[in-house]
Amino acid sequence: MKPESAPPPWIELERLLEQARQTELEAFLETLSPRELALCVSRLDDDRRARLLAAIGPDDAAAVVEQIPEVQAVDAIEMIEPETAAAILHELHDADRVDLLSDMEHGVAEAILDAMTDEEAETTRALRDYAKDVAGGLMTREYLSFVDSMTVDDLLADLRANASNYRDYVVQYIFVTLPDGRLTGVLRLHDLLFAAPSRTIRELMIPNPLSLRGDASLNDVRTFFDRHPLYGVPVVDDQERLIGMIRRAAMNEALTDRSDAAFLKTQGIVGGEELRSMPILQRSRRRLAWLSVNIALNVVAASVIAMHQETLAAVIALAVFLPIISDMSGCSGNQAVAVSMRELSLGLLRPSEVGRVWLKEVSVGWINGLALGGLLALVAWAWKGNPYLGLVAGAALMLNTVVAVSIGGTVPLLLRRLGMDPALASGPILTTVTDVCGFLLLLGIASAMLPLLT
Amino acid sequence: MKPESAPPPWIELERLLEQARQTELEAFLETLSPRELALCVSRLDDDRRARLLAAIGPDDAAAVVEQIPEVQAVDAIEMIEPETAAAILHELHDADRVDLLSDMEHGVAEAILDAMTDEEAETTRALRDYAKDVAGGLMTREYLSFVDSMTVDDLLADLRANASNYRDYVVQYIFVTLPDGRLTGVLRLHDLLFAAPSRTIRELMIPNPLSLRGDASLNDVRTFFDRHPLYGVPVVDDQERLIGMIRRAAMNEALTDRSDAAFLKTQGIVGGEELRSMPILQRSRRRLAWLSVNIALNVVAASVIAMHQETLAAVIALAVFLPIISDMSGCSGNQAVAVSMRELSLGLLRPSEVGRVWLKEVSVGWINGLALGGLLALVAWAWKGNPYLGLVAGAALMLNTVVAVSIGGTVPLLLRRLGMDPALASGPILTTVTDVCGFLLLLGIASAMLPLLT
Repeated sequence: MKPESAPPPWIELERLLEQARQTELEAFLETLSPRELALCVSRLDDDRRARLLAAIGPDDAAAVVEQIPEVQAVDAIEMIEPETAAAILHELHDADRVDLLSDMEHGVAEAILDAMTDEEAETTRALRDYAKDVAGGLMTREYLSFVDSMTVDDLLADLRANASNYRDYVVQYIFVTLPDGRLTGVLRLHDLLFAAPSRTIRELMIPNPLSLRGDASLNDVRTFFDRHPLYGVPVVDDQERLIGMIRRAAMNEALTDRSDAAFLKTQGIVGGEELRSMPILQRSRRRLAWLSVNIALNVVAASVIAMHQETLAAVIALAVFLPIISDMSGCSGNQAVAVSMRELSLGLLRPSEVGRVWLKEVSVGWINGLALGGLLALVAWAWKGNPYLGLVAGAALMLNTVVAVSIGGTVPLLLRRLGMDPALASGPILTTVTDVCGFLLLLGIASAMLPLLT
Repeated sequence: MKPESAPPPWIELERLLEQARQTELEAFLETLSPRELALCVSRLDDDRRARLLAAIGPDDAAAVVEQIPEVQAVDAIEMIEPETAAAILHELHDADRVDLLSDMEHGVAEAILDAMTDEEAETTRALRDYAKDVAGGLMTREYLSFVDSMTVDDLLADLRANASNYRDYVVQYIFVTLPDGRLTGVLRLHDLLFAAPSRTIRELMIPNPLSLRGDASLNDVRTFFDRHPLYGVPVVDDQERLIGMIRRAAMNEALTDRSDAAFLKTQGIVGGEELRSMPILQRSRRRLAWLSVNIALNVVAASVIAMHQETLAAVIALAVFLPIISDMSGCSGNQAVAVSMRELSLGLLRPSEVGRVWLKEVSVGWINGLALGGLLALVAWAWKGNPYLGLVAGAALMLNTVVAVSIGGTVPLLLRRLGMDPALASGPILTTVTDVCGFLLLLGIASAMLPLLT
């Protein structure tokens, strides 16, 4: 049984790191589950994290790198000697190696590439040339491919001889190329089971395999895997030469990364992952960049109130309804934003269908506006005993609910058509427009009915 | 070239459906990409969607069901004759079949199960007994398993004889069981390549394979796949009998579903997917359920303003700052909520570490509060020419930023510890508490300094 005062495991890790004994560090890391490992290593400061990776063997260091957040892995590897860094990166899958190197400073990445074998450096550079969200950026080079004239016997001999090299390779398919590198067929491993050893793989392969181009978008890749129940797809260049393959799992990970990033952006965490182990000033600066846009928009919206001070002074009770209308319109609008973003990502909505979304939202908006406005009207009436105050507050909320769902439903489509990111900009646009409209409605209707309110 | 007035493809689909000619319908669906198919079919009303599935062959209907949103597939299949529904479900992977049946009304699901073969109904019922987010709910029964005494020759004969049955099976591993059903080993397909036909699979298998229990949680499954670079894992019951396997892809899909659901919930879409093709009243009712909780909380928060009407009446300019403080505190707090939810889901934060999160957030909160409060103070001073008005507005925003990040950072942890869903409840709690505090701070500080403000 652990005593209650046992220090958390990252303190033990720091202690072992001070003594810097490789075998004890490796033995300690062995005792941790992957999630405990991630937790412990992510709690170290940048300096210690780099020292840990350098102190243990490259294969153990690679196992650590696979578990911790990418942003921490990049920072730590940048601080290590290029030779050690190259040895660690060598132990990773090529796609992971490329992801890390692309996020490093150019000079550091080049130094590490120079410390790799020529072949590994060349493959890595070739993969790095693709953006992360196109087919080329999702692909791996760790698959089996052979020239079509090879016999089954030679192929099996090659598999046996290179068993250890191929250990981490994708083996579901074997790609078959022409001597000039063009993809010509695919061979399933179990097709080899029943084949006579002297046959060539050209005779056994499925010819004209499906493939994607290196510049196909992530959505194209998803469409491909939606349509074909395959484990992976080969990628070719514009000369039809085989340049890589994409596993279905790599696509799934990219889609998950994309929705995680969208979640963070809608919540105002912009520019990548924030971890609480990052320096306070860095976290503060990144959050402030987003907040300062919002405060400027808020001041603009609030200036509508400033222009109606006489109405407010006459009926001070109206001030109570300003934040309610602002908040509730935000809630209604955000629901519409979420449904639009979801329908867009499910492919159930085309960015051009602004009119359809607007009609669908307006119907819901009137019903919900009536319900919420009616409720607020009753509360206001009961509070001050003046039915007209209820009418003003209720009407403003009702109308502004319709405005909010109209804006919330359509803005993500318009942003998508403009090539902008709906996750990033929908929220601030929604809030500002609905605040301005809501304040104008409440104070405008109130000034028109002022004699009945005082 | 398409004429510009060409009707969208779902109008064509409706037209063909009126004529109800199976071959023409099937041919038309063939021409659509999976995403176009999803778009078209999702645009039909419930009644037409059910008629479409019944009118085409079960295999084509199953292909449609795989593409459209689950909620629409469930509603449509419920409306079809049980025999036809069973024939369509038969064409699906068992995990998809179970997902759809679990979401149907009990009576309808039973009628469809009764129309299946006894074996299929039994398997389906057994899988349905597990919750969707435990190992049993993620597993498939479509894998190969054989008794350990079988010879390689017999196994290969079985594979050849049943090739068409096994077509959609997971073939990366072959599981080996004892005669009583207990899992005893695993055989990789390529281990069969080099084996003498007369050997038993017991001699070739890797003994004591890794496995998970049927009641392991989704997080346990993720930890397993984090630790082991495997394509799938067998699932056993408490007697160690093999009951299913989980593919890595099934886990990835479950994780994506979970984060999509969290996104919808944080935006106020509660109770599952909303699609704009759903009936307006249903969409309105579900959104209102969430909105009515929020309006109640908003009224509570605004009652703080009602209690300070004299202060407001004396300094009417304060009303301008009420919505600004409410909105900006919401923004700051939401950032902290997002970082906490993200760190929790990455496993970098334990739900018990409330103190650590609070300290980390307070540091950022003071810096950002100073910046935002300072900015607002300058705006207020410039607007009314009164530095004390600036001081009041700035101090209130500064202090409330600290409150907002404290609440936003810690509430997701507290909700998780209480077994509640942080995605659902963090937002409303945050908004209400920060509104109350913000209004109290602004109006409280203002009343204390009233002589300087008027």
